[in-house]
Order: sequence, then C-alpha cells, then structure tokens
Amino acid sequence: MIQSRMIPTPGTPVNDLDTPALLLDLDIFEANIERMSGFFREKTCRLRPHAKTHKCPQVALRQISAGACGITCAKVSEAEVFARAGVQDILIANQVTGQPKVNRLAALAGEVNLMVAIDREANLNEISQACKLAGTSLRILVEVDLGMQRCGVEPGQPVLNLARKICSFSNLTFSGIQAYEGHLVFIKDPEERAEKVKQAFIPLVETAALLEKHGLPASIVSGGGTGTYDLTGVLPPYNEVQAGSYVFMDSTNYQIRPEFRPSLSVLSTILSRPVPGRLIIDAGMKALTHEFGLPTPIDLPNAKLTRLSEEHGRIEMGDDDMPHLRPGEKIRILPSHCCTTTNLYDVLYVIRDERLVDIWEIAARGCNQ
Amino acid sequence: MIQSRMIPTPGTPVNDLDTPALLLDLDIFEANIERMSGFFREKTCRLRPHAKTHKCPQVALRQISAGACGITCAKVSEAEVFARAGVQDILIANQVTGQPKVNRLAALAGEVNLMVAIDREANLNEISQACKLAGTSLRILVEVDLGMQRCGVEPGQPVLNLARKICSFSNLTFSGIQAYEGHLVFIKDPEERAEKVKQAFIPLVETAALLEKHGLPASIVSGGGTGTYDLTGVLPPYNEVQAGSYVFMDSTNYQIRPEFRPSLSVLSTILSRPVPGRLIIDAGMKALTHEFGLPTPIDLPNAKLTRLSEEHGRIEMGDDDMPHLRPGEKIRILPSHCCTTTNLYDVLYVIRDERLVDIWEIAARGCNQ
Repeated sequence: MIQSRMIPTPGTPVNDLDTPALLLDLDIFEANIERMSGFFREKTCRLRPHAKTHKCPQVALRQISAGACGITCAKVSEAEVFARAGVQDILIANQVTGQPKVNRLAALAGEVNLMVAIDREANLNEISQACKLAGTSLRILVEVDLGMQRCGVEPGQPVLNLARKICSFSNLTFSGIQAYEGHLVFIKDPEERAEKVKQAFIPLVETAALLEKHGLPASIVSGGGTGTYDLTGVLPPYNEVQAGSYVFMDSTNYQIRPEFRPSLSVLSTILSRPVPGRLIIDAGMKALTHEFGLPTPIDLPNAKLTRLSEEHGRIEMGDDDMPHLRPGEKIRILPSHCCTTTNLYDVLYVIRDERLVDIWEIAARGCNQ
Repeated sequence: MIQSRMIPTPGTPVNDLDTPALLLDLDIFEANIERMSGFFREKTCRLRPHAKTHKCPQVALRQISAGACGITCAKVSEAEVFARAGVQDILIANQVTGQPKVNRLAALAGEVNLMVAIDREANLNEISQACKLAGTSLRILVEVDLGMQRCGVEPGQPVLNLARKICSFSNLTFSGIQAYEGHLVFIKDPEERAEKVKQAFIPLVETAALLEKHGLPASIVSGGGTGTYDLTGVLPPYNEVQAGSYVFMDSTNYQIRPEFRPSLSVLSTILSRPVPGRLIIDAGMKALTHEFGLPTPIDLPNAKLTRLSEEHGRIEMGDDDMPHLRPGEKIRILPSHCCTTTNLYDVLYVIRDERLVDIWEIAARGCNQ
C-alpha cells in the first residue's frame, strides 16, 4: 500500500520524528514573545509583528494575546489566511496592484481592520475603484524610502502630495507612513547601528512635521525590525514596530540580538559518512535557505556545514572527527534566515522537553500573491 | 467576504494572470521532451528523467509516454506522489534511512517497480528488515562517488563488497550502480566537459568489469544530467540517464545546452518605479531562487535583476531607461535554477499562444522526507 505522510502523535520523542523537520522549541518561543511584548508593554509605541517570519496563525494569535496590536503581512494572500484565522488588525506593508489582487484587497477590507502601503497615485485610483465596487473603505499608509532603495517615495513633499491625494478619495483614509530601515537592521556594531538609524530617521521626523503643519498628521508611523526594535520602538516619529524574526530567531539575527534565543531548528538525519570527517545529511536547499550564509550545526562547535545541494548538506569536522556521529543519527541545524526557511515547510513540529506537543500548520506558506 | 485563491479559467490571457506565477510554455516544453526522447530512441541507453526538476505527475507521465523508462526521484515522499499518479518504475537515487522512511519504502516496493541507492551495509539491514515485515522485496543500486564528494563509496572493491552483501539478503536484489558526475555537468567548454567526464568514468568501467568478473554484473548503471546526457548516454558503462532539467531549462542549463529552450518562466508585476532606471517587481526569494546566480529578465536585454529580497526583485536598466515599463505592467523572468524554483510554487500555469490552457499541480512540492 502506498502510505500517506505520517502524522506523529503528541509525546513522540523529537529524535523519532522523520526528517527533515522544522522544530519549534515552545519554551524558547514563549520566552521570546514575552521579552518583546514586555519591551513594548510600557511604551506608547505598539508592536505589530511581521508574520512573514512564521506564516502561522497559531503564532500570530499568541503574539496578539501577549499584547501585539495586530500583525504585518507582505501579501494579500497572506492577510487572507490570517483573517480567516481570526486576526482582526492587519497591515499589508507592500504595494498591492493589478485587478485580481486589488479586488481581494477591497473585499478583505470589509472583514478586518486593514491598512495597505502605497507609493504612487495611480495605485490609489485602482484601489479606490475596487473598494467602491466592494462597498468597502481602506486605510492607506504612504511608503517612504529611507535609503533601502526598494519601494517608497522620497521623504518630504512627495509624501504630503500623496497624503493629499488620498484625502481626495471618499473611501480611502490617510493613516500615516510606512518607512522601513531594512538596510540598517543587520549592522553588527550597536553604536554604529544606533547612530545610522538616528540619522536615517531625521528626514522622517521632518516629514511628520510637514504633514502635521498641513493638517494631515500621520496617526501611524510604522517600521523597524528585530535588529532595531529598541531604536524604532522609542525614537520619534515611530509608533508601530514590525519586528518579526525575534519570535523564531536564526544565526544572523542572533548575532545582533542575543537577548532572543533561537526557537527554530531543522532536524536532519545523517545519510552517509563517506570518509572520516565528512557527514552528508538529508537537509539541503529544499530544507534550509542560505542567502544569509550557510546554516550552523547546533551543539557541534567543530562541525561546519560547508555545502548545500538540493537534498543534501555536507558537514565537515576538521581535526575533531566526532566518531559518534554515524549514519542514521540526527543532527539539528540552526537556520541562517528563519523567514525563508519556514516558507519551505508545511508544518512546524512544536516541541517541549524533547517531545512533540503539537503540530502547527504554516498556513501562509507559499502565499506570494 | 474573504476571498479564496482564484483559479483562472482556460483561455485567460497570460498577462491577466495574478503574479508571481510560474508559467510553462507548452510548445517549448513538448519540443524539449521530443528532442531528448529522440536522442535516446535509437540508443541502448535509456532515459529515466529526474522528477526533482518538475515535481509534477503530468510532466512525468508525458516523459514516459515519449519513451522514458520510468522516473528518478530524490525522496520516498516524492516517489509516493508519482506512484499514486500511475508511474510504475521509480528509482530513488538517494539513501533512505530511519524507521519511518524505510517502512514507507518497503510498502511502496509492493506497489511499483522500485529501486533505491545505498552506500553502506547497515542501511541494507534496516531495509531488508522493513521489507520482511511488509512482505516485499527491493532492487538495490550501490552508489559510487566519482568525485562529487557527496554520498557513495569509492569505485572498485567497496562496490563489490556491497554487491555481495546485498546478495546475502533474500529480499534484496543487486541491480547495479548509481554514479552521478554532478561536479562535471556544468563545465561550460564542451571539450573540457567531455574529457573530464571520460576520465571520471574510467574507474567506473573498471568497477563494472570487476563485478562482471565475480559473477555480479551491474544490470543497471545510472547517472548523467542535462549537461552530460550526450556523454553518459553513449559512453560505457552507463545504460540509464537521469537528466531532468532539459524539460524546463533555466539560464544556467541554457548556457551549456542551447539545444533545449527554456519553457519555464516567472510572471511578475512591476510594483514601483521609484526613480528612473529602477523597477521593483513582486517576485523575490519566495518566487525565484538564486543559488546559481540571479535570474534574468526575459526580452529586456538592457535590464538586469540586481537584488532579491523576500518579496521584491530590483531591476536596474542602466542607460536605457525603458520608460514604457510602468508599475502594474508584467515582466517575465527566466529562473537560474528550475528545480528549486518549482519547489516554491503549488501550481504550474500551462500556456500556449499566450493563453492559459491548463493548470498542473506541483504535487511533489515540499516533499523532502
């Protein structure tokens, strides 16, 4: 008989799970949520975690229970998944354009408290038209480029122009600014990072003043990441922070933010040990991403992941041969980028005390429309 | 109302499809299948295409209709998907280890003509034991390392030793050798490639002779890729070729093998044009992979994709500003690696004459167990 994907039962020891598998350590995960929520608890700035990190409704609902004001999404299709799961306040932090998506955006605006980012006038026309047909209205943030050179208009007058334009549509509301300092979140030196972030925010402060002066205050100013949450979270003009990675972490973010610990790992099996000092594991590019560098074997300080092919990872061990690592045994790997790693899996195996306690669907995996 | 993912109907113009979308040009796809099948039609060597490229039963069934002897898979979970779709002859070209997977392997062996690669004795014990419990038997290939330094034993005596060991199990059959020259398939110069491949095959020829001499002839010798099909397909000792990429192609394989044309592309939408000469598209790392280098805009010779973030691609245009490219318009991108790109999508939009003709599920996407 052709078997189906097996669903392991709660209580299963972690090392009995089939591999590659994406593991979430519940204790560390909960501590990360508590630490970030704690930071924002006494602040006027709110936390609106970016759900691109986890793509998982169970995670979003826990973030909101702990105090987050809602979530950030990248795409309409992601927002739909979270809305269906009961998330009521969603920012789509990207431009949404083209008939199919704009229609879905307008429909979704009738169901949840929704905001979307724009950076050009023609986009407002299509969104307003779709909202008119759907009988809904939508809150709009103007995206400002602080130097990341992605989307967004220049600070200052272009923002005011777009804010005025938004106000000319009866079914659109100007709600503020989105400005993400993504080019600065991974600066390793904390002082350099703080200094560059402060510099980058100056034109944004001026933009906020300009809007205020013209009677169009930005009620929301949204940006920030895990690398900069303690800057964006306290510096004007921000009042919402989109940090996402803190909940799972990875080797890249951990170097910057050691106060959050990695809760996410990939369980893999040693397939082969062709020569002493070299292991081949069953986790390759379909199980681990590497745009931020190669992932790291956990608790094996002398072992280095040196290559990923599609289905295989090669681990080399230098002088320390570690003869106890034999084919069939399991190795855990710390991803270098949690957000793209979750996009490779359908489920998270939630573990505590080395046993499976739950399986959470990564329901927004693959939602790139 | 929260909408569901929309399913476009046949006849929809390609440029009306929502993006990012994975497109398959049926005319080019069929020509690629015919060209490769044509090459093998008069040969004694058989084609057993690697299904990791497409992960799609509709593609596999077309390859078999055109003459392929079966398919190659990387994982048991992939093989299960293709077996359910009616593929009857499958090689799992990797080591399968650990109770959950070995049990599934043994069960599947009762349903289809199945082979698996091994490179160590202990793996034979667990496979034989699982087959005993399932009441099945299995054909085994010994994997040989020709210099790729992944899995596999050295040529010569180690292969004979494992072949003998296989014969000691009543429910396992020694069926031959797998030896993939993966480190040589992307050598650009055809003469250098041919020379290195011929050199790499010498120890394999000797291994085949050694097996023959000891009464254990390798009835199957399997290897080869799109870059080397015309070498592996005619040189001894091979009699099966696992080429996969030829069916879709990508910018990397097209440099090596221009006789196959790219049938796969990613349709994306221009989201923003923040400054002259720079476009931001809605296809990032969740829509395109880049381990073989950044993908290429199609039919825009002066445009270069210069950066991928998770949801965005940045295209720069140098001196030629191409003012006709405006936000909302569509751009097609040629992936640099077709196999990992298909792993990011749930469906293939099959197109002919610029219209949608079918939607094929990438049913084995994400099957990494």
